Amino acid sequence: MLRNASTCFSKSRIFDGRLVRLQSTFTIPKTQKAVVFYENGGPLHYTDIPVPKPKPNEILVNVKYSGVCHTDLHAWKGDWPLATKLPLVGGHEGAGIVVAKGKDVKNFEIGDYAGIKWLNSSCMSCEVCEQGHESNCSHADLSGYTHDGTFQQYATADAVQTARIPKNADLAQVAPILCAGVTVYKALKTSGAKPGQWVAISGAAGGLGSLAVQYAKTMGLRVLGIDGGEGKEQLFKSLGGEVFIDFTKSKDIVGDILEATKGGPHAVINVSVSDAAISQSTKYVRPTGTVVLVGLPVKAVVKSEVFSHVVKSINIKGSYVGNRADTREAIDFFSRGLVKSPIKIIGLSELGKVYEMMEAGTILGRYVVDTSR
Amino acid sequence: MLRNASTCFSKSRIFDGRLVRLQSTFTIPKTQKAVVFYENGGPLHYTDIPVPKPKPNEILVNVKYSGVCHTDLHAWKGDWPLATKLPLVGGHEGAGIVVAKGKDVKNFEIGDYAGIKWLNSSCMSCEVCEQGHESNCSHADLSGYTHDGTFQQYATADAVQTARIPKNADLAQVAPILCAGVTVYKALKTSGAKPGQWVAISGAAGGLGSLAVQYAKTMGLRVLGIDGGEGKEQLFKSLGGEVFIDFTKSKDIVGDILEATKGGPHAVINVSVSDAAISQSTKYVRPTGTVVLVGLPVKAVVKSEVFSHVVKSINIKGSYVGNRADTREAIDFFSRGLVKSPIKIIGLSELGKVYEMMEAGTILGRYVVDTSR
Amino acid sequence: MLRNASTCFSKSRIFDGRLVRLQSTFTIPKTQKAVVFYENGGPLHYTDIPVPKPKPNEILVNVKYSGVCHTDLHAWKGDWPLATKLPLVGGHEGAGIVVAKGKDVKNFEIGDYAGIKWLNSSCMSCEVCEQGHESNCSHADLSGYTHDGTFQQYATADAVQTARIPKNADLAQVAPILCAGVTVYKALKTSGAKPGQWVAISGAAGGLGSLAVQYAKTMGLRVLGIDGGEGKEQLFKSLGGEVFIDFTKSKDIVGDILEATKGGPHAVINVSVSDAAISQSTKYVRPTGTVVLVGLPVKAVVKSEVFSHVVKSINIKGSYVGNRADTREAIDFFSRGLVKSPIKIIGLSELGKVYEMMEAGTILGRYVVDTSR
Amino acid sequence: MLRNASTCFSKSRIFDGRLVRLQSTFTIPKTQKAVVFYENGGPLHYTDIPVPKPKPNEILVNVKYSGVCHTDLHAWKGDWPLATKLPLVGGHEGAGIVVAKGKDVKNFEIGDYAGIKWLNSSCMSCEVCEQGHESNCSHADLSGYTHDGTFQQYATADAVQTARIPKNADLAQVAPILCAGVTVYKALKTSGAKPGQWVAISGAAGGLGSLAVQYAKTMGLRVLGIDGGEGKEQLFKSLGGEVFIDFTKSKDIVGDILEATKGGPHAVINVSVSDAAISQSTKYVRPTGTVVLVGLPVKAVVKSEVFSHVVKSINIKGSYVGNRADTREAIDFFSRGLVKSPIKIIGLSELGKVYEMMEAGTILGRYVVDTSR
Repeated sequence: MLRNASTCFSKSRIFDGRLVRLQSTFTIPKTQKAVVFYENGGPLHYTDIPVPKPKPNEILVNVKYSGVCHTDLHAWKGDWPLATKLPLVGGHEGAGIVVAKGKDVKNFEIGDYAGIKWLNSSCMSCEVCEQGHESNCSHADLSGYTHDGTFQQYATADAVQTARIPKNADLAQVAPILCAGVTVYKALKTSGAKPGQWVAISGAAGGLGSLAVQYAKTMGLRVLGIDGGEGKEQLFKSLGGEVFIDFTKSKDIVGDILEATKGGPHAVINVSVSDAAISQSTKYVRPTGTVVLVGLPVKAVVKSEVFSHVVKSINIKGSYVGNRADTREAIDFFSRGLVKSPIKIIGLSELGKVYEMMEAGTILGRYVVDTSR
Repeated sequence: MLRNASTCFSKSRIFDGRLVRLQSTFTIPKTQKAVVFYENGGPLHYTDIPVPKPKPNEILVNVKYSGVCHTDLHAWKGDWPLATKLPLVGGHEGAGIVVAKGKDVKNFEIGDYAGIKWLNSSCMSCEVCEQGHESNCSHADLSGYTHDGTFQQYATADAVQTARIPKNADLAQVAPILCAGVTVYKALKTSGAKPGQWVAISGAAGGLGSLAVQYAKTMGLRVLGIDGGEGKEQLFKSLGGEVFIDFTKSKDIVGDILEATKGGPHAVINVSVSDAAISQSTKYVRPTGTVVLVGLPVKAVVKSEVFSHVVKSINIKGSYVGNRADTREAIDFFSRGLVKSPIKIIGLSELGKVYEMMEAGTILGRYVVDTSR
Repeated sequence: MLRNASTCFSKSRIFDGRLVRLQSTFTIPKTQKAVVFYENGGPLHYTDIPVPKPKPNEILVNVKYSGVCHTDLHAWKGDWPLATKLPLVGGHEGAGIVVAKGKDVKNFEIGDYAGIKWLNSSCMSCEVCEQGHESNCSHADLSGYTHDGTFQQYATADAVQTARIPKNADLAQVAPILCAGVTVYKALKTSGAKPGQWVAISGAAGGLGSLAVQYAKTMGLRVLGIDGGEGKEQLFKSLGGEVFIDFTKSKDIVGDILEATKGGPHAVINVSVSDAAISQSTKYVRPTGTVVLVGLPVKAVVKSEVFSHVVKSINIKGSYVGNRADTREAIDFFSRGLVKSPIKIIGLSELGKVYEMMEAGTILGRYVVDTSR
Repeated sequence: MLRNASTCFSKSRIFDGRLVRLQSTFTIPKTQKAVVFYENGGPLHYTDIPVPKPKPNEILVNVKYSGVCHTDLHAWKGDWPLATKLPLVGGHEGAGIVVAKGKDVKNFEIGDYAGIKWLNSSCMSCEVCEQGHESNCSHADLSGYTHDGTFQQYATADAVQTARIPKNADLAQVAPILCAGVTVYKALKTSGAKPGQWVAISGAAGGLGSLAVQYAKTMGLRVLGIDGGEGKEQLFKSLGGEVFIDFTKSKDIVGDILEATKGGPHAVINVSVSDAAISQSTKYVRPTGTVVLVGLPVKAVVKSEVFSHVVKSINIKGSYVGNRADTREAIDFFSRGLVKSPIKIIGLSELGKVYEMMEAGTILGRYVVDTSR
């Protein structure tokens, strides 16, 4: 919190907002640092741009840290079947401090911690919004995709959709929870797996997988992890995983999973984006169990044999990002210390390097950018 | 078990009267007529075989009528990835009268109406049985597949799994409800569609489809039917269907369905066994909706694009045959006159002709065999 | 409806709103007719008051018709444990036309039909709001209770919470659906009763009960009604009810209900506000069934014997008013002609007479006030 | 089948070894020790009675240990509104070894460990049985109540309902899981509380309460305990409880609970059988939350104010004993070491002393009788 602001905006100048505590005021500059690109796949500019102004229903968040997600890479490359805004400031895992708010905002005060997530706003009045599936709203506005995101120092978001972050949270560590954490937590809820049941995490030792293992554990599930390579099993077990299947060593992955779980896991979370791995999960999931699709690989297709799909009565469910409730809950587990988010912090100015590493597939864990450098 | 009955009620008295009183006894012959085959795809013999004896937990049903299902054709041909008993008496939609019972049977009395269905018995003590998914039991015994079925005059079944049929039911008409009816009713339940929501029936004018339309209607759903050919729309609408899409005429099936239902049906029941139609249903189902697989085409594969599967958060669920509760409920809707079962009755001795018509794809509606001829 | 307004507010004067169609403009007067009271239980004044102005998130609705609900009587008397706004304009079943809107409103256009309901707005960001239970929000603003309601010609409401009404609807008839209809529909959903199961409506022939019978029927339920007096059974059966228990004639209400439903209804909707009737419903509800409380009698207490409550594993659930989804669905059933709303229309100026009849208990059916007289 | 074995494995070999091989046979005596009473409230006789013979569907279990439950006291006193068998051998938490089985039994082998629980058998073919609510079956046969129970060395039970116990389990410690453990676990499932939510256990430091705290914890719930007296808080916290409310010290129990849980627990498990405590739980449960009734106090009545019940939309659910799935799951949590069952072992011959202590209310923890002495 920047409490020694030398200039204080008058009430009227701060976007007609209501400043309840005099001391919670912040100097809001006219311009700020951001990473911008003007065409999909074009150069990433670390440059100065204007600070946006919040609408009546929005808050302005001074983003301190933002996680970097594969979705940001897709947004930059423009390889998804959904056009991005251009020019665009990416980023959708931004943790920071509320420094201004529109006049209709009631659920945030200046100085509160806030988290900007993928769903920047939704209409709240269509059929899916009414039922709490606001992520599926066809009028959804997406941070770092159709709405300038969190790879800038000051970003706006609909107050109702913005996550509340407790004051004791580490803003750098909580950043990846806002998308990666919420997404795997939502996938686990979507799976319908109950405490005491088995869940398999395909891609268990990666960034999303590591979070999934921890959330699963704290939800009372027994966790089987599938991944491959040096050190993966140790990492998995240190997070609370129970049985590890190394796909580089197993000669019969399906058979090994069926045996370890006495009939197959009740649910499978496909964090891995491999086509073959996803389709394979329909073979080892337990009868009446659920395969959850959560990654967004370009052009991938899941295939399932109809005969066994019916006779085993399995489900294949898509789980997108979490809604407001999922977000609150995922942050709550993090805040209670039950889920750790291993991160590496670099300056916002170095974002391009992270994209290069992502493309090369050499990233372990989650990068978080510090917007101050 | 009262096996030495000296008196036999005549058929006419049986069908008129209420045989609940203790004196209900039946002459059970030593041999009976049945259709048997000795190898998959081999000749169908209409011949005399011994009448089976019920085990302590079984009842012996004098089957009066039995529906003929595509599954019977698969059982005969042996083209499913699950071996049949050989020699085999097929059939699993048998409606008749309880004429004897094992000494542990408490839920049936001699003279009761009973329906033998696909699931002849299950272990009742494994994880899926415990949860009411007894159809998915790995120890399931299947009528007309691993246990001699209802193409004979006297068949046995586990009393707990056998359906109760009210005394006012027409035994010929209720026969197809025991598998076809229960299966589509279960699929509708599995879909999770709620009263007032849209359900699409792919293959709406066929035997299963016609039943599905009626069950959907009586469950308060709005029904969109997809099928093609002369007279199909009229049939569909006469059953209570609301919107019909003729795939032989529509130039944009997906677009037409999305428009008619303002965003897609909340659920799709794939009675059709066409690969392409099944995969297409993932494109028009409403976001957060459910595609139900219920037919059992050989070697078919359902394909779904992962990206839209996730972003739309859709489900693909397999629905097998119904359990005891589903069966009771499906029969109850039928008994209350809310679902009609259009049938054609022929003699058991002519079963082979029905198989030929099935293979040729020339059957409209459901054939039921009369075991007395 | 285009009323040939002689004066058109300029874009800037209409509360900064965006008027998308030039012809959809309305003359909004400075004052209007309303029924106001200044103290609970005090005189009801039919008088002129200022037309309110919508906030950025609100719409201004020219209320044409408003239903009169028992809740309005409680609001006036002030006998509920929740203080009303004073002075107060009551009413929360208002159907009319959107004549102005705040600048953040996206889901309504000027000229649309809209329905103002009990929940005028909620915070949308607390735990219950996030989960779609916005009616239970502790920051809820209530029409005709904490926010001036629909017993006036022009009323404001949060656009997100306001119901959409199709243009083909009769505004007088749809009015009672906005509270009475939605409330009983929600209660039926809350009950968890599934198509084909029995639901008992206690108070089946009253205003709420008549709607409940129709909604239950269209949801595929079998309906048993409990009520007493001349003509009640005929009314009940004309609405689709199946079994009627007249409490003025039955010598064993519990026994009669158990027998008629072969073990008790799967759910009971207590529209009646009698203490004794409510507690009695715990005795006849089917094992594992659900008793729904939906009326709001002052100081009433429901009592249930713990022993049978546990051994029968029954539920007693409170069902408050519906949320946005429930409202949309309840209006949809009405719009499709599946639910009729029998009303009597009188002038707004005569509202006091309706209160007198309510107090005296002499009302049959629902009164709707015409705000133009 | 009684095998009249000529060879008997010694006790020490039974408990050490794995008796899964076919040759496992046991000498079954003609008579055995049991505690019998001939009239409700009459003398308890520790005496010799015949060993019962299993029916075709039953197993004969050599009960090694049996827990003693309050229900046993009620059965003896006959103060519940449900008549007991007379004379009666009580007990329904019996853990032992299968020594014989009826000829229809497929799910147990001689030598397996088995647990006899409250529900000895049910019809498996009525509506509630079909839906997995077999505990609510009106034809239920109850161990130690309508069927001779586990306060004898050899007891019979329907094989399908008998619990499987893993061979590594301590038969004395697992005994109370068969009723007390399953019951609180089922209550937690019935509550619908999800991982991360708050559950209050009223009576948290008693025998049932201690188990409830542990099950809740392993299901990912946050646990608030309510109890009173010396040492209770320490016990509660040692089991994983988070917030303790001592009713002997709190001046505002409802207020303290609301504050500690920021709005009330999402669920309350009423292990305490105090009328006042049960009714009070409706006041502090969170809006949309669930109060679970699980104890069976004689003549107790739960009272809830209708107004707040509706406005808060709370539920009061009865939870009886668990079904087959609940039992398997509760034993699985125990077997994995996640739940400890603190017991005191005494000889079966001393059962009367336990009843005296129960009546006097001086029992802490659970007594288990050793049937060998």
